[in-house]
Amino acid sequence: MTDTLIKVDLDTPATENPQVHNRWHPDIPMACWVKPGDDFILETYDWTAGAIANNDDASDVRDVDLSTVHYLSGPVGVEGAAPGDLLVVDLLDIGAKEEAPWGFNGFFSQQNGGGFLTEHFPHAQKSIWDFHGLYTSSRHVPGVHFAGLIHPGLIGCLPSRDLLETWNRREADLIATNPDRVPPLANPPVAATAHMGAMTGDDRDKAAAEGARTVPPREHGGNVDIKDLSRGSKIFFPVYVDGGGLSVGDLHFSQGDGEITFCGAIEMAGGWVHMKVELIKGGMAKYGIKNPIFKPSPITPNYKDYLIFEGISVDETGHQHYLDVNVAYRQACLNAIEYLKKFGYSGAQAYSILGVAPVQGHISGVVDIPNSCATLWIPSEIFDFDIHPGSDGPMKHIDGRVDVPIAYD
Amino acid sequence: MTDTLIKVDLDTPATENPQVHNRWHPDIPMACWVKPGDDFILETYDWTAGAIANNDDASDVRDVDLSTVHYLSGPVGVEGAAPGDLLVVDLLDIGAKEEAPWGFNGFFSQQNGGGFLTEHFPHAQKSIWDFHGLYTSSRHVPGVHFAGLIHPGLIGCLPSRDLLETWNRREADLIATNPDRVPPLANPPVAATAHMGAMTGDDRDKAAAEGARTVPPREHGGNVDIKDLSRGSKIFFPVYVDGGGLSVGDLHFSQGDGEITFCGAIEMAGGWVHMKVELIKGGMAKYGIKNPIFKPSPITPNYKDYLIFEGISVDETGHQHYLDVNVAYRQACLNAIEYLKKFGYSGAQAYSILGVAPVQGHISGVVDIPNSCATLWIPSEIFDFDIHPGSDGPMKHIDGRVDVPIAYD
Amino acid sequence: MTDTLIKVDLDTPATENPQVHNRWHPDIPMACWVKPGDDFILETYDWTAGAIANNDDASDVRDVDLSTVHYLSGPVGVEGAAPGDLLVVDLLDIGAKEEAPWGFNGFFSQQNGGGFLTEHFPHAQKSIWDFHGLYTSSRHVPGVHFAGLIHPGLIGCLPSRDLLETWNRREADLIATNPDRVPPLANPPVAATAHMGAMTGDDRDKAAAEGARTVPPREHGGNVDIKDLSRGSKIFFPVYVDGGGLSVGDLHFSQGDGEITFCGAIEMAGGWVHMKVELIKGGMAKYGIKNPIFKPSPITPNYKDYLIFEGISVDETGHQHYLDVNVAYRQACLNAIEYLKKFGYSGAQAYSILGVAPVQGHISGVVDIPNSCATLWIPSEIFDFDIHPGSDGPMKHIDGRVDVPIAYD
Amino acid sequence: MTDTLIKVDLDTPATENPQVHNRWHPDIPMACWVKPGDDFILETYDWTAGAIANNDDASDVRDVDLSTVHYLSGPVGVEGAAPGDLLVVDLLDIGAKEEAPWGFNGFFSQQNGGGFLTEHFPHAQKSIWDFHGLYTSSRHVPGVHFAGLIHPGLIGCLPSRDLLETWNRREADLIATNPDRVPPLANPPVAATAHMGAMTGDDRDKAAAEGARTVPPREHGGNVDIKDLSRGSKIFFPVYVDGGGLSVGDLHFSQGDGEITFCGAIEMAGGWVHMKVELIKGGMAKYGIKNPIFKPSPITPNYKDYLIFEGISVDETGHQHYLDVNVAYRQACLNAIEYLKKFGYSGAQAYSILGVAPVQGHISGVVDIPNSCATLWIPSEIFDFDIHPGSDGPMKHIDGRVDVPIAYD
Repeated sequence: MTDTLIKVDLDTPATENPQVHNRWHPDIPMACWVKPGDDFILETYDWTAGAIANNDDASDVRDVDLSTVHYLSGPVGVEGAAPGDLLVVDLLDIGAKEEAPWGFNGFFSQQNGGGFLTEHFPHAQKSIWDFHGLYTSSRHVPGVHFAGLIHPGLIGCLPSRDLLETWNRREADLIATNPDRVPPLANPPVAATAHMGAMTGDDRDKAAAEGARTVPPREHGGNVDIKDLSRGSKIFFPVYVDGGGLSVGDLHFSQGDGEITFCGAIEMAGGWVHMKVELIKGGMAKYGIKNPIFKPSPITPNYKDYLIFEGISVDETGHQHYLDVNVAYRQACLNAIEYLKKFGYSGAQAYSILGVAPVQGHISGVVDIPNSCATLWIPSEIFDFDIHPGSDGPMKHIDGRVDVPIAYD
Repeated sequence: MTDTLIKVDLDTPATENPQVHNRWHPDIPMACWVKPGDDFILETYDWTAGAIANNDDASDVRDVDLSTVHYLSGPVGVEGAAPGDLLVVDLLDIGAKEEAPWGFNGFFSQQNGGGFLTEHFPHAQKSIWDFHGLYTSSRHVPGVHFAGLIHPGLIGCLPSRDLLETWNRREADLIATNPDRVPPLANPPVAATAHMGAMTGDDRDKAAAEGARTVPPREHGGNVDIKDLSRGSKIFFPVYVDGGGLSVGDLHFSQGDGEITFCGAIEMAGGWVHMKVELIKGGMAKYGIKNPIFKPSPITPNYKDYLIFEGISVDETGHQHYLDVNVAYRQACLNAIEYLKKFGYSGAQAYSILGVAPVQGHISGVVDIPNSCATLWIPSEIFDFDIHPGSDGPMKHIDGRVDVPIAYD
Repeated sequence: MTDTLIKVDLDTPATENPQVHNRWHPDIPMACWVKPGDDFILETYDWTAGAIANNDDASDVRDVDLSTVHYLSGPVGVEGAAPGDLLVVDLLDIGAKEEAPWGFNGFFSQQNGGGFLTEHFPHAQKSIWDFHGLYTSSRHVPGVHFAGLIHPGLIGCLPSRDLLETWNRREADLIATNPDRVPPLANPPVAATAHMGAMTGDDRDKAAAEGARTVPPREHGGNVDIKDLSRGSKIFFPVYVDGGGLSVGDLHFSQGDGEITFCGAIEMAGGWVHMKVELIKGGMAKYGIKNPIFKPSPITPNYKDYLIFEGISVDETGHQHYLDVNVAYRQACLNAIEYLKKFGYSGAQAYSILGVAPVQGHISGVVDIPNSCATLWIPSEIFDFDIHPGSDGPMKHIDGRVDVPIAYD
Repeated sequence: MTDTLIKVDLDTPATENPQVHNRWHPDIPMACWVKPGDDFILETYDWTAGAIANNDDASDVRDVDLSTVHYLSGPVGVEGAAPGDLLVVDLLDIGAKEEAPWGFNGFFSQQNGGGFLTEHFPHAQKSIWDFHGLYTSSRHVPGVHFAGLIHPGLIGCLPSRDLLETWNRREADLIATNPDRVPPLANPPVAATAHMGAMTGDDRDKAAAEGARTVPPREHGGNVDIKDLSRGSKIFFPVYVDGGGLSVGDLHFSQGDGEITFCGAIEMAGGWVHMKVELIKGGMAKYGIKNPIFKPSPITPNYKDYLIFEGISVDETGHQHYLDVNVAYRQACLNAIEYLKKFGYSGAQAYSILGVAPVQGHISGVVDIPNSCATLWIPSEIFDFDIHPGSDGPMKHIDGRVDVPIAYD
């Protein structure tokens, strides 16, 4: 039996667990140590550590304090790991805690986090997804069920002091360009809600004031929200501190490319990761590595029949942007939502599907001035009915009796 | 035997072929007519209609007149097609003309077109790719060969007059924000090099002065450069004029997501498309369609073992951008190039590989402020050697004796 | 949390568990009842219920009493199920019991069970396979590791009295054609070692004397040993008795087509199946169903690069058989073993690999008199080294220091 | 442009073409010579060289003289090839001759060839399949269309004199066990209809009397009818004579595993193969090769959603066979036919589908005495309607207005 090196109790606040942290800082002490070649299990909270409940009321999504996220399990020290190495991590398996076979997806209020289509969906909404073994479905989004592409939204090693300073400086510079923006351009350190693992006292306070927020992906990986870092994949992480300091959390049962709904994927209420670590000494220089690289899993949902939507970088008001993939992908998403509505879905249900199902977002053309082109791929097999276009026009398979709960600001 | 409705002679200028055109305009007369249910073949020039030669000299890429592209075969009128319909096009097969089993890839000079990484590769370069049945390889980029994902870079229907005016207006508005920029923000109509199919005289001159350039993808599809519109796929195009007016060209033997090298994919020196058309009457409204949608082919190269590179929206100078997928994808591309150089490739060779091989570009995270995350997927099977990282470090399999020909400005 | 309706304690004899049985008989009482639409979990013993140990001594394989197998969990009664219905079973997930992350593969002695290549491997041998999350590897077979294609070797519903009599009669008729054969042509009922679930007394004794052995697949499915009935698949079973009576066991972590080593696949030391049941009333007649049909899982190991071996129905002595797929597949297997030996494997190691890895066995030609052709597909990605042929000849990657333990008769 | 080394004129008898032969014999002179590394094209007749016409009359199938088949293009000599080498053949591409975009499938009369299910379909029947680019469909079998998995049914090198004698002797021995059987157990040499390539006079007559028939697959490959030897695959052939002597023919546009209808797959009326050859000197001994091995193509139809039928080795009369995969596969086929009939297909149409579509036949269990288990996998995407079972029962999508033409004996 494999050792579980970090356990979490979903009924106990994450802030009481010294093997959990919610900031990046090189001084956070290792929560446990392993040797190269070891495999072990870490349990995890959901990214909010219990702030979102399994019910039909979206007010918890509306009111969430985003300065508290993400609660990560770790850091795990690896004996012999030194700056410049590559830490090779095999995600041997990932699952839900037995007592928590469910997850949530939501859209944040435009006033508190927003999302990729927040102008169209400005209020907090939430759907609950139940896990049935390898599959999931939602009482709030009928007519769709699919196999999970389980992965950590967030995984990476501790930054060095230099790297941390680089992060804080460049993000502060960005914030300074428009400091009063709502939502902000980036999130600076917030000491009050920082949970620095086993740190206490002045050390904790100093580190909490400096600790980088976990929201953005950065050089070390971090919150990359790449759905393809799924169980069975192998990741090569840059090491910046002695011991590496690998932390993981924010498990997703499934997610579409982009995690467009922001809150987020299907956020697993509680889970565990079984992983194995090895080292490539000096691997960063040997291979010219700046960001993590990885090999995908051989065991991912094998969907093949897609319906693909195009978007170009002319926005929904008709305004022409210059080679902007964000705009193009937004248009592809809006096009797909419009299409799904013809089958009876509400816009919010369609938006949820794009956020949680294993949809692909491809960068399809980035040089044909002035329009970028992006494509959104929806696997047709996830629907209980046929979504292909035909000469008879779409049938309203979804009767509108249920919708995604909403909480107005 | 299927009828070839448009033939092209690669030894004759495209401008002499009345069934070919290089602008979008509703007045271009149909080059031929078909009925719903018909299948037929159209031959095509390469997008420059012969401006780029099969040799080791990149000066033709440097000197190309980009106001002449793209030479398209069509428009094909479909009986009964009317504005608001969807034109369903099955790409039954696509191939190279027997006398032209080769294609080219190039980077434009930064002074004449540029490309996605033009700051890093500012001079014109060109590689030639030979076709061996289903496969391709290049004398300029050793160690790599792969199966073609043959597709048209450009396909779509004629715009209505209203749509054309919308295009010209919004692109003119963009140009007006920085009219002296080199390269320009967009390309306005250029009458001199316009080839308006069978139009002549004043009609031709008037239409040539208005005809939209073919470079960007737009609502009708057009130059989407989506590698997955490959032979075997089925596309649903919006119809804007009576008869539809379907045109096609810019055939690619293979391309990576983004067509980052701009000139472009593996541009087929001459080819043909076997297609079938059908109609969904009133389909645009029935399905809420603004841009084309499509189903991918069941017969595409089945590469499964990828090495995946991450990029975030911090650029190579360390500057922090706000949720910019373009920057993130650029970083993923630069990371991959750096990696491939460790195996002996020149930067230009690595850049070429990303432009021509069936690499995937995924939009992986678009909401985690301030960093977008994009991933670049390289199929490892296309290399003649193992590109995976290992504890011994990379071996220099490529000896540097050949490189991609360059032509300095 | 899903209910576990049948629990097994691997430290307690299966014969003491009234929710387990090892014969097919319509009188075995339901171990539990569920409703259509329910999902639930059943735990299972390995097929021998603990007769084979995790050690390096094959004598337990040599000495196993095959009249005791297979120990199945069930039968599960489904409310409303009636003869003629189809019982629709979703295998929502399958896993190893936490305390038993391992399995065994073995070849039986030719004197006690044999196997597909028993003339070439006449003695009992055993390899142990450890599970590392989704993957497995063996201390007895180096150089190979792969993702599990977890499935039940045996699953099906109770036979009716008529069907049971048909089975016993036709198998007795076969045995009668050569009653003294070693090994026998088929296995008649054996009352002594029958475990009839909750049955006791005379009822038990009568049923035990009639109960069909579980070794062969039959109309109801049963011991089909189809690797593709993997977790995530959906199976449609004929129902013969009121309540259906679904039983399952013989879980395999992975298996090659044919289960050629007989003992068997990677036999999971203890496991669980999470499944859901529904009914199609009268489905057997509606769809003309005699044997189960099924849909494979969308989440199976995605191996793509195979090396394929052909075999024809001329046996290894040069004798010509008439359109005999068994002989052809045997030759394909022997050809593959000979090939793998060139890389350093012992014959027994190669035979084990064919038995446990997700190799495919295809019936490739069955009409070209007098030779059938069969193909054996080995996924090349499961090896830690390159097994493709090349001009330099094979390298001995395996040094022969370990082999598969053997126990001579 | 690639050289076409062998051309065939479909309007001229194959027997007048000295670069074509229909027997295996070491004395057949090379039709042309190539060097290792060369790629070239060979054109081919259909296997009967024009005996079957594109019409609705099956009498040509009924009356075909099977002693004339298969007409092969070759042998191609490869400079430097010597006995014991492996000839590495890349099937770079395969296609239909432009003037022959169609193929045929048929069942032979039980009196003249038969087939896998000849007792159920004793009379000659024929369906015509039209090619639409990469796809095919038939006017005789509505409701189904699919992408071709184009491959040669027959390809291999000339036997040595010793090998030829071995073949003739062992097949004669088999015939001798029941010399009057109809159909025969095997086919002995028939001089009258032998076409020995460029041989003439006494040499031809002597070789014709000895030349092995081309029907069965043998050590050299030959008529293996493996659907996965498709365009894009790479095959390693044993070499038995100086120069190798590679011949190819019997092109199939598509075929199901087993080629159960015997006449056969979708037999291409005329085609071409683009291939490349290389040598592994001494490769047979280096790799222990007796029969060809191969790597499948990366570009095959990507069907994923299968409906799978099981069969066991109890025949349709209820008779119990001992571990007989042929019987098991027959049962799986009969089960599938019965199922498809519920949707309106005639038995002959369903049988045709199993013969021509890319169905898989897996050897699923071969050790569970007394029953073998085989599975037949039908890709559900090839149908224009949903073939999955559901609670409402099957809908008759096929109205029975057309059937497969029949010609009674």
